[in-house]
Amino acid sequence: MPPLRCVLLSATFDLRALCPAALDAVSDVIAFVDDPTESPETVQLALAWQPADDALTRYPNLAALCSVGAGVDSLVTCPSLRPDLPVVRVVDPDQARAMSGFVLWHVIGHQRRFRTYAANQRARRWRYLAPPEPAAVPVGLLGYGKIGQRVATDLMALGFPVSAWSRTPREDGPGGVTHHHGPDGLRAMLAGTEVLINLLPLTRETRGLIDAAFLRQLPRGAYLVQVGRGEHLVEADLLGALDSGHLSGAALDVFATEPLPETHAFWEHPAVFVTPHEACHASERAIARTLRATAEAVRSGRRPPDTVDTARGY
Amino acid sequence: MPPLRCVLLSATFDLRALCPAALDAVSDVIAFVDDPTESPETVQLALAWQPADDALTRYPNLAALCSVGAGVDSLVTCPSLRPDLPVVRVVDPDQARAMSGFVLWHVIGHQRRFRTYAANQRARRWRYLAPPEPAAVPVGLLGYGKIGQRVATDLMALGFPVSAWSRTPREDGPGGVTHHHGPDGLRAMLAGTEVLINLLPLTRETRGLIDAAFLRQLPRGAYLVQVGRGEHLVEADLLGALDSGHLSGAALDVFATEPLPETHAFWEHPAVFVTPHEACHASERAIARTLRATAEAVRSGRRPPDTVDTARGY
Repeated sequence: MPPLRCVLLSATFDLRALCPAALDAVSDVIAFVDDPTESPETVQLALAWQPADDALTRYPNLAALCSVGAGVDSLVTCPSLRPDLPVVRVVDPDQARAMSGFVLWHVIGHQRRFRTYAANQRARRWRYLAPPEPAAVPVGLLGYGKIGQRVATDLMALGFPVSAWSRTPREDGPGGVTHHHGPDGLRAMLAGTEVLINLLPLTRETRGLIDAAFLRQLPRGAYLVQVGRGEHLVEADLLGALDSGHLSGAALDVFATEPLPETHAFWEHPAVFVTPHEACHASERAIARTLRATAEAVRSGRRPPDTVDTARGY
Repeated sequence: MPPLRCVLLSATFDLRALCPAALDAVSDVIAFVDDPTESPETVQLALAWQPADDALTRYPNLAALCSVGAGVDSLVTCPSLRPDLPVVRVVDPDQARAMSGFVLWHVIGHQRRFRTYAANQRARRWRYLAPPEPAAVPVGLLGYGKIGQRVATDLMALGFPVSAWSRTPREDGPGGVTHHHGPDGLRAMLAGTEVLINLLPLTRETRGLIDAAFLRQLPRGAYLVQVGRGEHLVEADLLGALDSGHLSGAALDVFATEPLPETHAFWEHPAVFVTPHEACHASERAIARTLRATAEAVRSGRRPPDTVDTARGY
């Protein structure tokens, strides 16, 4: 059987350069199309990340649209997406573990006062800080899917009390997590959270969620780890909360505009740690696994695994 | 029955101020002696940390000497220690967990290139670093007791390959760790280690172990996390290995002289992270538990639990 034809769609990244090993690993079942104008009606698959608005118009016979990551917000909001086209996300335990390591580093850094140690070192100052035990530093997770559950497990192993919030009630995940849902649950969780980890998917409902009124619900001295999407956060409101001292700091990996503009206040803010949207990525192994499973499903007329609810947005 | 009389012995710390809750928690079974000259022959217990050389001469009827921590080097090397006096260490799972959090922070920080991100932030530079996966960053543990085993478990959960070295073969600890012992085993482990964690007890054999010849056995770019004792390390040799670029960095929590002198080169070295001997401490809960168990054993004429081999030194 000839390989399925697959087009690469991104307005911002060269996907061939982003995951060459993944594309190579599935070359027995998928042929990646270099010239997008060549027989577009024979293209059955698309691999995408931040596609252009009209990226999908050209391909009337697409059977599935794959993301290169766990997030699909740039796919499901693409204006040229047909509502019935299956959108596939990458589910990758290694990505969850990488996110967990990234989050742990920031949570431990806050709990153990490493920023203060660094400042004391610059001042040649030997000073005991007697940092609090993990049990005294409650962590709240916004979003509680596969990645959040992995983060919760690792935080609890180190002794941090963990709460998690999701839009709707859910029963899965490790034992020991205090689960909240809905608007009342969100208020309850924020009031008892010292370190807040944003792992939410970006949807119409979560865009701009983290604003001044939201941040005020956190106790004074709270710390934000922002690894969802830049659009979740009203950046000026975070700066206000940091400058008033209500928040003690923030680790920001995602931004409203990426790359973060050179003139942005975050770069020089003493309470902000900036990383360039690198908290975690799906591995090429996992992208290849997803592409192969999607191709096999398309071939046999089944719905691909790991599709998202396009209307819900994740 | 009247409480056992216990003296507090430290040339460097006010032990009453260091662990007031622990002392208070055992006041039903132990009376802490404020005036060391008052009836020293009735003193049966001593709680010590860095005692003066002659600290123990005054007390002919001591039945046990307790540490306030996991380390006992300052007790077993005290010249006035009778060789047959039981020396008791604190065994504390919470302390092991605290050490593990401290070590994880440094290991993840090295693996994820957080120091480079911080430098890039200062330069307002958005640059992908594509850090290696944990599987590509082998960690070696020097010392593999209760604390090392906990550190190994947590590192493996995040995907780091872990090796561990101890003086003699041992069978305990979590599965998945590559175990080495003896001089040949040490060479083998160092050659395959990117991040080396020193958790050794300080003994005659380990004093000055980490010198230029030792550091040369690590691969280029290796990183040292030094949380054992300052005397394990030849500090000038570490500076040499950092300045030559053979080592990429070091996290130092313990030093030959503490507090670290204000003029020491470590304070300003760009590849050194200094913390003030605060990686972990035994909790007051655990100190109280140890004191109570020791007092009960002394009362009933048994050997206290968690005693060390004084001749071996740990």
